[in-house]
Amino acid sequence: MGLIERIVSKAIGKNVSAGEIVVVNIDAVYAQDGTAPLVIDVVEKELELRKKIAAERAYFFIDHSSPAPHVAAATVHKEMRRFAKEYGVKLFDVGYGISHQVVVEDGLVRPGMIVVGADSHTPTIGAIGVYATGVGSTDAAIAMMFGVLWLKIPETVKVTLTGSLPKGVMSKDIALNIIGNVKTDGMLGKAVEFRGDTLKELSIDSRMTLTNMCTEMSAESAIIPVDNVTRNWLAERGYNVYREVDWEKEDGYVDEIVIDVSKLEPLVAAPPDVDNVKSVAEVDGVEVDQVFIGSCTNGRLEDIEIAARILHGRRVKEGVRCIVSPASRKVYLEALRRGYIDVLANAGCIIAPPTCGPCVGAHMGLLAAGEVAVATTNRNFPGRMGHRDSKVYLSSPAVAAATAIEGRIADPRKYLL
Amino acid sequence: MGLIERIVSKAIGKNVSAGEIVVVNIDAVYAQDGTAPLVIDVVEKELELRKKIAAERAYFFIDHSSPAPHVAAATVHKEMRRFAKEYGVKLFDVGYGISHQVVVEDGLVRPGMIVVGADSHTPTIGAIGVYATGVGSTDAAIAMMFGVLWLKIPETVKVTLTGSLPKGVMSKDIALNIIGNVKTDGMLGKAVEFRGDTLKELSIDSRMTLTNMCTEMSAESAIIPVDNVTRNWLAERGYNVYREVDWEKEDGYVDEIVIDVSKLEPLVAAPPDVDNVKSVAEVDGVEVDQVFIGSCTNGRLEDIEIAARILHGRRVKEGVRCIVSPASRKVYLEALRRGYIDVLANAGCIIAPPTCGPCVGAHMGLLAAGEVAVATTNRNFPGRMGHRDSKVYLSSPAVAAATAIEGRIADPRKYLL
Repeated sequence: MGLIERIVSKAIGKNVSAGEIVVVNIDAVYAQDGTAPLVIDVVEKELELRKKIAAERAYFFIDHSSPAPHVAAATVHKEMRRFAKEYGVKLFDVGYGISHQVVVEDGLVRPGMIVVGADSHTPTIGAIGVYATGVGSTDAAIAMMFGVLWLKIPETVKVTLTGSLPKGVMSKDIALNIIGNVKTDGMLGKAVEFRGDTLKELSIDSRMTLTNMCTEMSAESAIIPVDNVTRNWLAERGYNVYREVDWEKEDGYVDEIVIDVSKLEPLVAAPPDVDNVKSVAEVDGVEVDQVFIGSCTNGRLEDIEIAARILHGRRVKEGVRCIVSPASRKVYLEALRRGYIDVLANAGCIIAPPTCGPCVGAHMGLLAAGEVAVATTNRNFPGRMGHRDSKVYLSSPAVAAATAIEGRIADPRKYLL
Repeated sequence: MGLIERIVSKAIGKNVSAGEIVVVNIDAVYAQDGTAPLVIDVVEKELELRKKIAAERAYFFIDHSSPAPHVAAATVHKEMRRFAKEYGVKLFDVGYGISHQVVVEDGLVRPGMIVVGADSHTPTIGAIGVYATGVGSTDAAIAMMFGVLWLKIPETVKVTLTGSLPKGVMSKDIALNIIGNVKTDGMLGKAVEFRGDTLKELSIDSRMTLTNMCTEMSAESAIIPVDNVTRNWLAERGYNVYREVDWEKEDGYVDEIVIDVSKLEPLVAAPPDVDNVKSVAEVDGVEVDQVFIGSCTNGRLEDIEIAARILHGRRVKEGVRCIVSPASRKVYLEALRRGYIDVLANAGCIIAPPTCGPCVGAHMGLLAAGEVAVATTNRNFPGRMGHRDSKVYLSSPAVAAATAIEGRIADPRKYLL
């Protein structure tokens, strides 16, 4: 049995395995301002008939177009506030943060839970041992109303990470390495379970980048077992394991990949696909107009910290816009307290409030035709961050910060002596 | 002779008076991302014929839709960068700041200069003794190409301020008081010259709010004589007076208004007009959805400071969005250094990069139908900050901060004991 099978078996009280379709009680469900309108629509139409709701584990996030860049967004936000108030859905308004970051850092989701989010990067939260999958708005609405949903348990591919990451190489590089090998459909319909001795050196921040990027391999879910890193992280915050399973036993895989991370170097996903992965050396010197550090992939404290370490006492290259958006208010406040915001702002970065904006091409720094960006985000297909003829290279925050200094894609290792 | 007549007379070397049409050499000219596209168009069409440009005193600002909220804005920005590079126009890119703030704080405009800006609030910079007026894009293009423009010298109305401002009452309240009396067309085609003993207590920050709001009385220009406050401000920054005139002599007015500012109380301009001015007491308790502190009117250090003093150790009311956007990177960095950003962020404010965005309804916090905002900006007509059926109350940053705490329009004086 894989971890996800264990969680579901424990949750429903009988042993189940991959491929089975089960009906499960959902421990948390969330939607954001891109997906919430249809959730609201479905719930309210259904309620006409049934007049009941199970919203106590339901959350709304205003994170995509936040603060509202146009009246249409403002109108969606207003509707979300009305609905949330009326039905008891907890709403996280403008400025609070990106859904996947907030549900983890606020303890709304905990290890062993079964969670659906109406956002494709919901597998992110598998980093703390949650079985999480992204769903459409209609499924999210059903989960909000009844607390129940059917799920087909995915088969699991084990990804074993061995060795220590070299300086200047981050978990984003591990994720890019995997995607470069398995390609964007490599995990279609499957779950990815991370194992191996590297994990004990990866913080929860780093782990969330790994699970986040599994969406880009078409994985339905991604999960990292609860270990001492997780338990310490939980204990520091007064959180607990929601549903204990045997986290340690390695079982139930349909396939396995082994990666020696000590051999990795800084990577990028070159346009126009996430699996078009190259070493920084191969694209060294590509000039950029904009750098973006943020998103549910790499907008956490560790990401802001590495950018600050690299940009400390240095300047963003004249003519380059470097936009930094912490993934949540908590990340922003902690980065402020530690002086990272000060370092980045003095280096010439533009500090934006938490938003998915630039990553999804919604607002807060779009690209014109012909412009080139390096972004710590998760997708780089044509038009993702603006005009169809703009280009996005995905990278770690270390590569992004080095690139901001030089105005062209650069290796961060020289700045981390 | 009024101050503006003195500046023009000195500039062209013969005495001129209000009503005369003169051709003057322009000391500085600027445009922003709303007005620059037509400037570029006119200049480049003209250059086809003439192949010359006088761009050495020309500045472009990307401040309205910054960072770009959509591809159309990104495209305009890109075009501005291309033009600026090709013709030697100095460009202030995303994150640098709002034009009127930057030209003053960076010393690009200095007392005695004659300056045109392709933005309606160009009279703001009259606060340091500049004769400044807003022009259309075509006029700005002509000024950029030839350094020369014809101007009809405006008649001047003297506004004499006496007494000291009570605690919690700011220069914004003086401006709102004047507009409430003279109405939005009260200074049509005229210039406003501020005089009186109150001035010696008003910082350059406070003065810029005063001259800024003269645009809302339909004034063509506004000016404050160079005095010790100005000279100290210049000396601290290593700036000088560009063109000395007799700043002290009071002469050449067509009308005079006298205001005892010690009698003022906190005011708002209630929707739907800037001249619909009421005391906070009259609108006390009006509930708000959003508070915005920023813009060329009230996004300066003094404004951020008063908001931080009021919000220190307090919280933005649950359910209210309070967006704070310093008017420039320099203001942001100094507010960061002094701990104001820390206070505001910890109070729950959303700290946005410098932008005109929310004020002009371009992005960064628009209002849905039925929503109500208090904003430290300069215009409140229907649709200004979003949906036509949203409502904006204009106020000082003190009133705005108190309102953020209470979630309804509130008197700041109770928080300033």
